Amino acid sequence: MLKKFLAEVKPLDSTAMKSAQERLDSLIKPPGSLGELEAIAVKLAGISGKLYGDISKRCVIIFASDNGVVEEGISSAPQVVTQMQTLNFTKGITGVAVLAKQFNSDLIVVDVGVNADIENTAIKNKKIRKGTWNIAKQPAMTRDEAVQAILVGIETAIDAVNNGYKLIGIGEMGIGNTTTSAAILCALTNLPSKQIAGKGAGLSEESYRNKINVIQEALERNKPDPSDPIDVISKVGGFDIAAMAGAYIGAAYMKVPVVIDGFISIVAALCAAKLNPLVKEYMIASHASFEQGYKVAAEALGVAPYLHFGMRLGEGSGCPLMFGMMDAACVIIKDMGTFEQGNIDDEYLEEVRDADFHIRGL
Amino acid sequence: MLKKFLAEVKPLDSTAMKSAQERLDSLIKPPGSLGELEAIAVKLAGISGKLYGDISKRCVIIFASDNGVVEEGISSAPQVVTQMQTLNFTKGITGVAVLAKQFNSDLIVVDVGVNADIENTAIKNKKIRKGTWNIAKQPAMTRDEAVQAILVGIETAIDAVNNGYKLIGIGEMGIGNTTTSAAILCALTNLPSKQIAGKGAGLSEESYRNKINVIQEALERNKPDPSDPIDVISKVGGFDIAAMAGAYIGAAYMKVPVVIDGFISIVAALCAAKLNPLVKEYMIASHASFEQGYKVAAEALGVAPYLHFGMRLGEGSGCPLMFGMMDAACVIIKDMGTFEQGNIDDEYLEEVRDADFHIRGL
Repeated sequence: MLKKFLAEVKPLDSTAMKSAQERLDSLIKPPGSLGELEAIAVKLAGISGKLYGDISKRCVIIFASDNGVVEEGISSAPQVVTQMQTLNFTKGITGVAVLAKQFNSDLIVVDVGVNADIENTAIKNKKIRKGTWNIAKQPAMTRDEAVQAILVGIETAIDAVNNGYKLIGIGEMGIGNTTTSAAILCALTNLPSKQIAGKGAGLSEESYRNKINVIQEALERNKPDPSDPIDVISKVGGFDIAAMAGAYIGAAYMKVPVVIDGFISIVAALCAAKLNPLVKEYMIASHASFEQGYKVAAEALGVAPYLHFGMRLGEGSGCPLMFGMMDAACVIIKDMGTFEQGNIDDEYLEEVRDADFHIRGL
Repeated sequence: MLKKFLAEVKPLDSTAMKSAQERLDSLIKPPGSLGELEAIAVKLAGISGKLYGDISKRCVIIFASDNGVVEEGISSAPQVVTQMQTLNFTKGITGVAVLAKQFNSDLIVVDVGVNADIENTAIKNKKIRKGTWNIAKQPAMTRDEAVQAILVGIETAIDAVNNGYKLIGIGEMGIGNTTTSAAILCALTNLPSKQIAGKGAGLSEESYRNKINVIQEALERNKPDPSDPIDVISKVGGFDIAAMAGAYIGAAYMKVPVVIDGFISIVAALCAAKLNPLVKEYMIASHASFEQGYKVAAEALGVAPYLHFGMRLGEGSGCPLMFGMMDAACVIIKDMGTFEQGNIDDEYLEEVRDADFHIRGL
């Protein structure tokens, strides 16, 4: 199943991208002067196959799960916060919830492994198991469970697109998941955990050193195979990250743009891109997470974030902000006037034509 | 007059800022985890004196003017483009126009020195003169004219606030104004023009070398006094930059937040802040312009841009994007739930309280 989805991801539509670039170059501005907003408009054309990509109906998908490694004391928040915040998403009071509302986005909350029985019709129950095992002592999950969690992500993204969503952001909730993300990234890049693990918002110097050691221990004990992202996820990752990787694949499979949030989200994106590099073509970065590992992951994936707010909330909170910027890219290509339109009504057209008019280097 | 306005700029309201910070710290997120969005919410409280700053009615003010230095061949666009684009703003087809519409912003277009007779009721006629003199040969304007142009900017901002605008962005249109901006910045920082002048969108290597030389020539001929921003503006600047500097002062005087666009806009901001450092408290950076001088100006002013799109259009086009991000800051402080609200409905409150609950380091 997973192989089938991976094999059917298609490259972007180069004809649509060429048309988009031509349209952008005809607009009343120095060519290229709107920078990455133009590049985003081109990418959206390549993804949708249409000159004007429609991203009006959008959602952030949040995968919530618990991590056995919390028993090592790598987080200052108790595990129950995973469940609480998962419920709070449905109440509209968390960071991602208010930002999603502001940028006209829905939230889709998926329980892929919260360590509690959640009975809430607003939360999709796709629980693999009540939390992973402790990666400092054993693999987080079996390989079968990892594949199962990836498939949950793929199917959630496919369902979303079938329900009309044309733009997806990928978020998470899971106490301990900066530790699992850092462990995955260490495995994939062969860097030591001290270069990747972050202090988060509240770790003391002592807890931070502990976190670094726990990650290193998890890597040494489980020996994940860097050439096999599923092996890495199953040994030192989590159900949330597996499902998120799957959601990137599902979005690409369905030809829908997919926005990366912060550190955990980009580590999942990197796993997806390692399973099939074409998936990356459908991804759009958002903000530069404060977490030090973000930069390493962004470089490994080959993307550069656009928004620099020093955010480190997670939840998918950077995605709605980027949706707003993507709206800007859409109105530029669709609503700006052309050079012709900019001149047609005035007497200067002739003079400007004589000057071989091309507004450059204003 | 100018001295009176400068003297009456007040510091931000520290009581309101403290309340805003307390409110942010009570919200259901790790303290500080929304980074600069939180800092912006605090700043808006300090500016407005209210916990929830209202920025719903906003505008970008565009100051249009021509520059005599274009006769040195420092721009690849003909001077008539200043007039054309000034008219195009009113047609809603330029980059800043479509972006302003997307982010619910109006445009206010002010002719402060376009080299043409513009008769258009949608454009405010505050023309000082039909373009400056050529700075490579003589000062751009008299000192009186510089003060007059600054006052135009101040009065335009005051009028805008009196008309209900609660947030202002500062843009410009003027062929040749990256040259004048670079000259001002060189004078203020004592850096050579090759470290500040940019190639813009279309300058050839040869024209770029010419631009660098023209700026150096202007500095040597006019000898602007770095300790006197008005002297600098009058000798190597332009009416647009003078009016923009005034608009920052006017916004601060009226206690309204004011957004910096790209290179020209930030050079004007730097001039305003040098006239009174308190004006800076009311400024909010937006995007990192592609123009190399932007970074120098941002460091000199002591601000860091949030949006990294490699834009170099000018017009004030980065301001509406930032308006959207400021809206995000506003909904965070206003609409997120508190820790209490996040727990009140569920059975875990007790357990969480026992754990001395403070979500940190998720």
